[in-house]
Amino acid sequence: MKIKLVLYVIGLLQVFVGLTMLLPAACAVYYAEPALRALLWSMAITVGSGLALALFTRQETDIRVREGFAIVTFGWVVTAAFGSLPFLLTGSITSFTDAYFETLSGFTTTGASILSDVEALPRSVLLWRSLTHWLGGMGIIVLSIAILPFLGVGGMQLFKAEVPGPTPDRLKPRISQTAGLLWAVYLLLTVLEIFFLTAGGMDLFDSTNHAFATLATGGFSTKNLSVGHFESAYIQYVIVFFMFMAGVNFSLHYRCLTGLKPVVYFRDREWVFYLLIIFCGTLLIFLQNWAAGAGFSELNFRQCLFQVVSIITTTGFATTDFDAWAPFSRIMLLSLMFVGGCAGSTGGGMKVIRLLLILKHGRSELRKLLHPRAVMMVKVSRIRVRPEVMLNVLSFFTLYIALFIFASFFMTALGLDLVSATSSVAAALGNIGPGLGQVGPMLNYSTVPVTGKWLLSFCMLLGRLEIFTVIILFLPEAWRKF
Amino acid sequence: MKIKLVLYVIGLLQVFVGLTMLLPAACAVYYAEPALRALLWSMAITVGSGLALALFTRQETDIRVREGFAIVTFGWVVTAAFGSLPFLLTGSITSFTDAYFETLSGFTTTGASILSDVEALPRSVLLWRSLTHWLGGMGIIVLSIAILPFLGVGGMQLFKAEVPGPTPDRLKPRISQTAGLLWAVYLLLTVLEIFFLTAGGMDLFDSTNHAFATLATGGFSTKNLSVGHFESAYIQYVIVFFMFMAGVNFSLHYRCLTGLKPVVYFRDREWVFYLLIIFCGTLLIFLQNWAAGAGFSELNFRQCLFQVVSIITTTGFATTDFDAWAPFSRIMLLSLMFVGGCAGSTGGGMKVIRLLLILKHGRSELRKLLHPRAVMMVKVSRIRVRPEVMLNVLSFFTLYIALFIFASFFMTALGLDLVSATSSVAAALGNIGPGLGQVGPMLNYSTVPVTGKWLLSFCMLLGRLEIFTVIILFLPEAWRKF
Repeated sequence: MKIKLVLYVIGLLQVFVGLTMLLPAACAVYYAEPALRALLWSMAITVGSGLALALFTRQETDIRVREGFAIVTFGWVVTAAFGSLPFLLTGSITSFTDAYFETLSGFTTTGASILSDVEALPRSVLLWRSLTHWLGGMGIIVLSIAILPFLGVGGMQLFKAEVPGPTPDRLKPRISQTAGLLWAVYLLLTVLEIFFLTAGGMDLFDSTNHAFATLATGGFSTKNLSVGHFESAYIQYVIVFFMFMAGVNFSLHYRCLTGLKPVVYFRDREWVFYLLIIFCGTLLIFLQNWAAGAGFSELNFRQCLFQVVSIITTTGFATTDFDAWAPFSRIMLLSLMFVGGCAGSTGGGMKVIRLLLILKHGRSELRKLLHPRAVMMVKVSRIRVRPEVMLNVLSFFTLYIALFIFASFFMTALGLDLVSATSSVAAALGNIGPGLGQVGPMLNYSTVPVTGKWLLSFCMLLGRLEIFTVIILFLPEAWRKF
Repeated sequence: MKIKLVLYVIGLLQVFVGLTMLLPAACAVYYAEPALRALLWSMAITVGSGLALALFTRQETDIRVREGFAIVTFGWVVTAAFGSLPFLLTGSITSFTDAYFETLSGFTTTGASILSDVEALPRSVLLWRSLTHWLGGMGIIVLSIAILPFLGVGGMQLFKAEVPGPTPDRLKPRISQTAGLLWAVYLLLTVLEIFFLTAGGMDLFDSTNHAFATLATGGFSTKNLSVGHFESAYIQYVIVFFMFMAGVNFSLHYRCLTGLKPVVYFRDREWVFYLLIIFCGTLLIFLQNWAAGAGFSELNFRQCLFQVVSIITTTGFATTDFDAWAPFSRIMLLSLMFVGGCAGSTGGGMKVIRLLLILKHGRSELRKLLHPRAVMMVKVSRIRVRPEVMLNVLSFFTLYIALFIFASFFMTALGLDLVSATSSVAAALGNIGPGLGQVGPMLNYSTVPVTGKWLLSFCMLLGRLEIFTVIILFLPEAWRKF
């Protein structure tokens, strides 16, 4: 491991993250908020220490596999530390644990909050909170790759380590171009959502914040009641639509935009399966809630659709207290937390494509029992899946479940009940945000013990970087000098 | 699929199962119980219909893969139906659903009961109840293979489909010999346990019943308080020891007995890992219960050890109400339900070897990320694991989890709360017996709705036959004529 190189790239990353604090600072100027001073200090500290680090360790950027994993993992850890400065220096959050939890929850697009009254925060701080989502959604490092082309070949290592899904798409031969195009699509969708939300009467500030949180599948709202604050059906459906879009592979959006053919979506098996899960999930929960007396109404349908899309895309917005729903609806939502969005989307969870591959593989295993000598091949969208990819997907699944179980152990050891413990871990690992019970949608994570907050923070990071990137650094071999 | 052949073998199996009812009938004679008449009728109906079926469909026994799966699956389904006759005809259980649930729970060695007062049953019926455990434990079909050597080559298909674990051991070239040896070891251990229990003051009737339930890792007791009824520490430790032995691969016992070298256990990685899980599980739960005020006592230690061994071996005996323990201890036990015993033991669950393989594979996947071009091989007890076996193990794991989730959905839809729903499914699928909440160790399954009982029965069968054997029959290809 070339530790100096790792520090150098992380230093550059901090300069970059520090500069993004200009946006909340501008917001503080606009609203004449006293938070401006604290925001400028945060920026100065972040940029300054980043520059110092980069200058001290300056060198050639020959990034190998192992450095790639270390840069991405520690880059995220350090970014969340500096990113918590605006919360701490403005006094919005007083404990470092809480501020770090909130910031990492932002960058990983989890959206789990320890704040019980977000409306009391200065607007500029709220904007920073939403901006952490937006930067983390498509990926801070992916953005740097687009902007810092000198990362060159090593950029691919970083890209692979940060972008979700078993095999990332390369839209263009040069990885910096691919990264740039993805960010362009992301920006376009964000602007579109802001437009449609303001058209529905939401003010520019709220619509910007919600667009950031939606496209990143984050879930931080500027309102205590989350999206439930906005009772307009139009606004809720707009948010559902953009959450849905954020959970789709962004390469598909790019292909659709360049060819202007929506047919690309329907040709993609992952997208079709994603749509199917949303359809079935909404239908089942709608029927269950209807049976439980919620009425055969548009409101009931909208609430079910909103929660299903919000959970499967791992956004975590809420329009109602779904923890008060019947056990069946709650366990459905809990399971959707594990599914997550499509590969290459900003959503978390295990990703739809992995689930699809696992199902197809299960079927081929059964057929193999009947025809022991036949050679079976799993295909998705007419492409053969290599056995190595399948083994990787299956081990991702088992690792995910294993982490879920171990972390749940720890949470119960800290005194949480079974439902709160398991759902908080599922929500952190899948980057959703709200869970059930003690951490339900109308409550928050402030009641979780300090150790629990750190454990959940670690789970968020594992979930966002898809486990392997982080876990690999626990292998002693990753640190060998050669 | 040769349906006539399937029916023929099932017919023979019924004759055989019917004859085992002689044992409870003898018991009824000894205790002069009026249940004798009902038991003789049950036997007559079972043997009679079995004979009739076999005579009508008599033919060559050329069993292929697909017939193997069908014989084992339907053999179990039919056996449980006839096996419920003693409960129904004696009036011990009045509803067919309940009787079928109780019998299948017996044969699959689950030990989940719908009876709230077992002590009210005639002794002969209780003996039949325990005998279903004992027959199902080592396997009714394995027993038939040992006794009906004409099954010949086809026996291997049946053996593979019924014996748990990824790759069954063949102790002898002829499968009927292997089956016979396994049953001999099983019988020896049962006799030993009866001896040690009676030496501790338990009467012959109770000790026979408990020995049947222990060696089969079943869990039916003749007492309402389960093993908690016997307060003697000696008796509880004897049961712990034999539960532990029942959870070990019986080929190891055979090798140890023939060579008289206990070192065979320590050379087996699965056994060592099994011991390690029990050690860690007991320690952690002991510490948690100590922290919760249970005292640093032999009693606390014994209760923890007993529950851990009882759950991991999937027996399901209880000496205390573990559902009243702290959330951490409860979730530990819930997780152990998924682990289960060793391959080739009478225990259920996923089996320790699968867990070990999955862990080793996860490590090799991580190392592959660091050295993308290296060829990694997973080894267990110095034997290389082929990639096909690994894919099979991983898909077993995912299928197990998927079934667990889907069945939990259904149970919540029937109105059970989250903890009761998930733990009842885990307990049925893993063949444990008691769960948590509404189906906790001091309660029973009588409050579960009828649909839920059938679903859980199906889960028991899936768990006992390790999923593939049953699920494969849902593929249309399995039924093709060729």
